[in-house]
Amino acid sequence: MLNIIYAQSGGMTPVINNTAASLIRTAQKHSDRINKIYAAKNGIIGLIENRIIDITNLSEKDLSLIENTPGGIFGSCRYKLKEDDYEIYEKIYHTLKEKNIKCIFYNGGNDSADTSNKLSKIKEYFDYDLICIGIPKTIDNDLPFTDVCPGFPSSAKYIAISMLESSTDLKSMYLTSTNVVIMEIMGRHAGWLTAASSVWKKKEKDSPHICLLPEVKFDKDKFLELVKYFKNKYGYCTIAVSEGIKDSNGNFVANSKSVDSFGHKQLGGIGFQLSNLITNSLKYKCHCIVPDYLQRSCTHIATPIDIELAKAVGEKAVIYALDGKTNIMPMIKKINTNPYKYEIIDIELSKIANIEKKLPNNYINKNGYEITTECKNYLKPFVLDNNFSLYQDDDGKPIYFEFD
Amino acid sequence: MLNIIYAQSGGMTPVINNTAASLIRTAQKHSDRINKIYAAKNGIIGLIENRIIDITNLSEKDLSLIENTPGGIFGSCRYKLKEDDYEIYEKIYHTLKEKNIKCIFYNGGNDSADTSNKLSKIKEYFDYDLICIGIPKTIDNDLPFTDVCPGFPSSAKYIAISMLESSTDLKSMYLTSTNVVIMEIMGRHAGWLTAASSVWKKKEKDSPHICLLPEVKFDKDKFLELVKYFKNKYGYCTIAVSEGIKDSNGNFVANSKSVDSFGHKQLGGIGFQLSNLITNSLKYKCHCIVPDYLQRSCTHIATPIDIELAKAVGEKAVIYALDGKTNIMPMIKKINTNPYKYEIIDIELSKIANIEKKLPNNYINKNGYEITTECKNYLKPFVLDNNFSLYQDDDGKPIYFEFD
Repeated sequence: MLNIIYAQSGGMTPVINNTAASLIRTAQKHSDRINKIYAAKNGIIGLIENRIIDITNLSEKDLSLIENTPGGIFGSCRYKLKEDDYEIYEKIYHTLKEKNIKCIFYNGGNDSADTSNKLSKIKEYFDYDLICIGIPKTIDNDLPFTDVCPGFPSSAKYIAISMLESSTDLKSMYLTSTNVVIMEIMGRHAGWLTAASSVWKKKEKDSPHICLLPEVKFDKDKFLELVKYFKNKYGYCTIAVSEGIKDSNGNFVANSKSVDSFGHKQLGGIGFQLSNLITNSLKYKCHCIVPDYLQRSCTHIATPIDIELAKAVGEKAVIYALDGKTNIMPMIKKINTNPYKYEIIDIELSKIANIEKKLPNNYINKNGYEITTECKNYLKPFVLDNNFSLYQDDDGKPIYFEFD
Repeated sequence: MLNIIYAQSGGMTPVINNTAASLIRTAQKHSDRINKIYAAKNGIIGLIENRIIDITNLSEKDLSLIENTPGGIFGSCRYKLKEDDYEIYEKIYHTLKEKNIKCIFYNGGNDSADTSNKLSKIKEYFDYDLICIGIPKTIDNDLPFTDVCPGFPSSAKYIAISMLESSTDLKSMYLTSTNVVIMEIMGRHAGWLTAASSVWKKKEKDSPHICLLPEVKFDKDKFLELVKYFKNKYGYCTIAVSEGIKDSNGNFVANSKSVDSFGHKQLGGIGFQLSNLITNSLKYKCHCIVPDYLQRSCTHIATPIDIELAKAVGEKAVIYALDGKTNIMPMIKKINTNPYKYEIIDIELSKIANIEKKLPNNYINKNGYEITTECKNYLKPFVLDNNFSLYQDDDGKPIYFEFD
């Protein structure tokens, strides 16, 4: 009989708790082989500090409510295990040994794959048999060897609908008010979520007019020329910008020296920085949207495929463990695009750890500020939701009325 | 036979196009008395510049898609008519006369009530019979003589769900990451929308911990003490702040030099300003959410009562005109809170123009950073949505699972 533990790590997603619920449900179904189901509070920190809860007997109603909940139901952490920190590994070992836990499921992104992989040290240091299974999640969609990361589709939907709604509002206001709207989007090194802003874009006039990806070096002069072009042609300009765009020297553009009215240094804020650049250089009135945590906690808008994938990896992780597999992560292999079909495959944790998958070149238009049709076709199945509140087309795009 | 014209003005709402569609539908039903239905592009500017479209024969399918569309389907404007600008009134008169339009419906907020009221000058200057009906809309909810303004309920829902989702995310992250999340909310002088962040708050630990309303003078030291208190007690602190909070001298805390066409100061950036204040004074890591246009274009989350009210005022406006009434606005009189029942009454435009209804004292907790039960009871019916995607309680609050 196996005792298992589950933990969540890194930035949360709108559907990570679907993975948790699915994993618990699957483990409960195998009560002939799994005895106790535990969860660590705040990821690896709960294992280090022995903050563990017994979740063996959560009811189906509890599990449904867990699926209904954004954030990480057991708490998350940002904590990097060091290779040689023996004392830390010893603490984890004591926690595991006390409850006779022989299997860890670690639900996270790249850093978390690294953590799960390092947990195999426990076996090495203490001759303690331990199954380590990573489970993918990240709104950044930057894990290698998987077609998509659970969590990304819902955040992509949030960004797509937010871009559509805000730019439609702007279009009705630009004549006497704001001319430029900038949306600052998460994803420091990979532009997947920023690209999602453009999933439904068909014509040049569709928003966002300019999509600034971290994979493309930011050129200030070219950018201002583009803003001017769109403002002159359509009356307004809409911009999606990744928080992580870099200049020609590879430095983050958002490294502000500006000072606020308290005399304090202005933090972060690539969106507001571009807004100031435009206002000062072109005298256009700008608005800046910073969804921040909203784009990764938008459970109310979670898409069906995302919920399905989040559950699938949670279920498969338990199956792997029961099959005696270790140091792997269930990943998604696409079999068909439309309708989206996939199978779950296992990938070694050591291959995944700390690798970030960026947008490939063929997903970025040669002009540097749009995504390609290939990229849109990749993104479309993830933002589909037939139960969405608004009338929509076959791509899940709400259909708006337009007077020429 | 009457020719009528409809126009939209000021900042848009998630449901203003429901008002438009309902007005057109009602006018079409009275084709025995109404001949042509026109719309002015960009509000009063379309009347001045003679940019008018004939919408008499819009199909039911068109009207459904119009209801599906955020922003203002005919374009809006921020433009203040002057009392004595004869040439402008003359231009409007020529537009009206050319198409024999004898009835104007102007859909807007306080400024727009002023505009509709001033249009009666046309009658005075040119001896031209004209019915002027204002129709209410504003996410600010600051029109007097009405229980609620169409547009506000959906934006309130957006703010309430955004506060809940983002603070639940923060709760799972604060141990090793961000300690404070600030959400900057629209509402220049009235705190209705900021108050909506707290509609479901029951206990001190529920978010937002601190609700900063424009009706309450901002006290920097007291604020920092509060942030410290919540951070120490719960590990994190969540803050809803109105863009328009003022200091003890009555000046906006977020000071910016840009001004809109009404001479209103362009606000923005109070969120990041408070974020910097906290980071510098208390060394807590902060995140700042700026929903900006998203909170007024969130048609995907429009609430049933808001859609119903938006349609009701559009319909009633036509009925008033057919009854020969003029210089009035249909307003909402509450008859019952739960379930919400109302009737439509008419109020003279001259009474409404340029008056802003603020949060009454009994809606603000004496501590200055929370709203009262009366205020929550007022707000609750507006955020209800039985078709919402998540499990929810009787108040429309999604039910989340929580350990301990």
